[in-house]
Amino acid sequence: MKQDLEEQKTFVKDVTKMSDDFDKWYTDVIRKAELADWSGIRGMMVVRPYGWAMWENIQRAFDDMIKESGHENWAFPLLIPREYLMKEAEHIEGFAPEVAWVTRAGGDNAELEEPLAIRPTSETIIGTLIKDYIQSHRDLPKLTNQWCNVLRWEKRSRLFLRTREFFWQEGHTFHANAQEARDEVDLTTEYYRQIAEEWLAVPVIVGRKSESETFAGAQYTHSIEGMMRDGLALQMGTSHYFGQNFALAYDIAFTNKENVREHCYTTSWGMSTRLIGGLVMAHGDDSGLIIPPKIAPVQVVVVPIHRDAESRAQVEAYINTWIAELKGAGIRYKIDWRDERPGEKYAHWELRGVPLRLEVGPRDAAAGKVVMVERLGREKTPISVAGIGEQVGAALHQFQRALFQRALDYRSANTFEVETLDELVAHFRERKGFVWAPWCGEAACEARVKEATGGVTTRNYAPSEAVSGKCLVDGAPAKRRIVFARAY
Amino acid sequence: MKQDLEEQKTFVKDVTKMSDDFDKWYTDVIRKAELADWSGIRGMMVVRPYGWAMWENIQRAFDDMIKESGHENWAFPLLIPREYLMKEAEHIEGFAPEVAWVTRAGGDNAELEEPLAIRPTSETIIGTLIKDYIQSHRDLPKLTNQWCNVLRWEKRSRLFLRTREFFWQEGHTFHANAQEARDEVDLTTEYYRQIAEEWLAVPVIVGRKSESETFAGAQYTHSIEGMMRDGLALQMGTSHYFGQNFALAYDIAFTNKENVREHCYTTSWGMSTRLIGGLVMAHGDDSGLIIPPKIAPVQVVVVPIHRDAESRAQVEAYINTWIAELKGAGIRYKIDWRDERPGEKYAHWELRGVPLRLEVGPRDAAAGKVVMVERLGREKTPISVAGIGEQVGAALHQFQRALFQRALDYRSANTFEVETLDELVAHFRERKGFVWAPWCGEAACEARVKEATGGVTTRNYAPSEAVSGKCLVDGAPAKRRIVFARAY
Repeated sequence: MKQDLEEQKTFVKDVTKMSDDFDKWYTDVIRKAELADWSGIRGMMVVRPYGWAMWENIQRAFDDMIKESGHENWAFPLLIPREYLMKEAEHIEGFAPEVAWVTRAGGDNAELEEPLAIRPTSETIIGTLIKDYIQSHRDLPKLTNQWCNVLRWEKRSRLFLRTREFFWQEGHTFHANAQEARDEVDLTTEYYRQIAEEWLAVPVIVGRKSESETFAGAQYTHSIEGMMRDGLALQMGTSHYFGQNFALAYDIAFTNKENVREHCYTTSWGMSTRLIGGLVMAHGDDSGLIIPPKIAPVQVVVVPIHRDAESRAQVEAYINTWIAELKGAGIRYKIDWRDERPGEKYAHWELRGVPLRLEVGPRDAAAGKVVMVERLGREKTPISVAGIGEQVGAALHQFQRALFQRALDYRSANTFEVETLDELVAHFRERKGFVWAPWCGEAACEARVKEATGGVTTRNYAPSEAVSGKCLVDGAPAKRRIVFARAY
Repeated sequence: MKQDLEEQKTFVKDVTKMSDDFDKWYTDVIRKAELADWSGIRGMMVVRPYGWAMWENIQRAFDDMIKESGHENWAFPLLIPREYLMKEAEHIEGFAPEVAWVTRAGGDNAELEEPLAIRPTSETIIGTLIKDYIQSHRDLPKLTNQWCNVLRWEKRSRLFLRTREFFWQEGHTFHANAQEARDEVDLTTEYYRQIAEEWLAVPVIVGRKSESETFAGAQYTHSIEGMMRDGLALQMGTSHYFGQNFALAYDIAFTNKENVREHCYTTSWGMSTRLIGGLVMAHGDDSGLIIPPKIAPVQVVVVPIHRDAESRAQVEAYINTWIAELKGAGIRYKIDWRDERPGEKYAHWELRGVPLRLEVGPRDAAAGKVVMVERLGREKTPISVAGIGEQVGAALHQFQRALFQRALDYRSANTFEVETLDELVAHFRERKGFVWAPWCGEAACEARVKEATGGVTTRNYAPSEAVSGKCLVDGAPAKRRIVFARAY
């Protein structure tokens, strides 16, 4: 036991402490836990199997949700002719600075007649192509989604959070009336909340972005905003209502029940591999990752403890008597038989954020028990192997809830209210976190805050909330209670 | 009943008959059954939900297989610096004519210092990057895979079969010795056989390609070759053994057990959305698609038959008494309540190749029965709804087998043997199909066949087969019995 404790202290090597340098901790932990690396091609990452497996689990969860409500997966082209991209002025203004262009192709390496953009997002190509599939109101709603890669030529990069190529789903829907499209935005925002809170165990603020933070070309944007453990906000998913803006620009129309041609009401919504970064920053600690069980590629690691061949055989035989129960209970587990000291193995799996560890030695075998250690508080619980599948399943369930509660407590402790710009500036001089304040709704006041704080932005607000009081900046009657934060 | 029969004759409109024009039938059926369309961007397709859902089912099946044997999914960058691409001479010679280049990007639309290729396949970038993850023999084998899009700037296009952007998996594996890498090629070839035969119900010839048909840069290539209903061959998956070629070009090395640095032995293997085209061409008929149940997005369609509101209510109540049993049995079904005549609905779902149709009218409701009609022979079987889940499940299982048998019979009827070039030329002047012949192994003889027949190529051969006789072309002792065909 003493040895165990000593080992525990030295489990994680070479990862910068979170409290010393959050940014460096973030990169260290992602690289050492084998989630991803830079590729050597500027701004482009290699996502490694452990990171990709988390994304696959998120994909599966979200894909099930959207299919249940009638959404369908398509695959639209990667390359977008320049003329398609140029039809909606506001949208292209937003994206043009980030586009990569294919200009030459084929055997003679010939210059293309018209350059093709690699999609930074697909409103323009889907808007152009979907027309062929919409004639009458009976073809609506058209609820499309695709899982794909997109490219945005960003200047600054950060693993998962800002990479020139990233992976996402983008939903694009087409409706016969405004209400249905607005409902779609609400529905998909709720899906994102579920992914964040129920799967990633990250509590989020659900609300509407200010006009200046709205997606290029949209009438409004809903977002979910999580708090990372450095007090910064992370936008974890957005859903946009376009009204008829895009439908008019791309002439997406249908014949209504009265046989009159009308333009559609459209939405789009996306979440990306940035969520993996969010997961890391919302839950990690000095020892590394902490992965919510519902997303964890490995939920349980079994660490056999043995001194010699005989005790190894004994432990192995013992594990074989109950390991199938874990599989039967649908638990994703690994047995770590590597030729390493137990302490090395503990550190290895703690760094990787595996929720539960089962330590199994000869004495445990003799007693019909295993020692369950949970990653969060490292509490050790000897459990009997009778009904182990159910017990471990319950512990994982409990872990998922505890992780969410921990993040919620952290957010509560780092959420504040202010009334004036001075208070807000004073706050952000000393601390981070979410700061709620009354706001008149004017972009000028938002800009003033950003300037005075060196980059604090509005995150979102509840559009239906009744608000009293005065704008923190200009003292005009407040229209919104909005949350401010430094953000990724 | 009479009405039914009449309707059956006119079910499918506007699809060219397969026997009249196979090429046109192929395109018609893919478009009318809503699998895919051209996008308007040359050579690029839009894959529609019904087509994509088939690909998702194939993906799930194959992904399960490769994960079971320890393969892991990664995501490597879409863009490849020119210098990476250029390291293996033979490989780049094969792919350079098909590469699309990104030359400008970002806000100022600046010329990049070095152009970036959009991956036509990822040997070169994975080869460059994987080095960081391989130090010692303990890091091997490294079994990577990715599901992604690739671009090949082809001149001629055909939906699913040859498109400038397509979707695939590409496996890339790294081994400590030649035998293990050879075994990997055998294993993945066997996986492809299983996907083709057990999931797509397409019997395939498994074997090795001739040298001239080997993948650029590989020592040998294994393929699976299916026969389409026009007698042409389709290569449906390939697996390549590189020996140390790539490892030497990209310096992919490890420290072996004797602490000596050695280069890896590598493989790569891929299958793509071309399989959807194969599915269409291997099974379809004049009425449209026929989809194997294991891949079918909709395995069973329920068509309610009613005259008035009252009989509709009666039929609906009846369906509700047993429909949950289909779901419980894991069957993918749809109930077609659209406001169309039954005959229209039959045609709609036959075109889409749904294996089983359940017709349910008031008389069926009264008798506790439904009429099951299978897509292949259109045989009608009244079945009792007691145990309907099990009965329909068994019928789907039977359908899968029957479809495979039908394709196997077709292949048998269109497989031939010849001894001389004259016989082979005579054969291909009149017919298509697979033609086996003895061959000396010389590329010149292969080229002679291609020239004399206007394009007939070798498909593959069994490398371990003992062969006697004389080469069909030059009369030299035969080394191989190889299959010739016109191919897509």
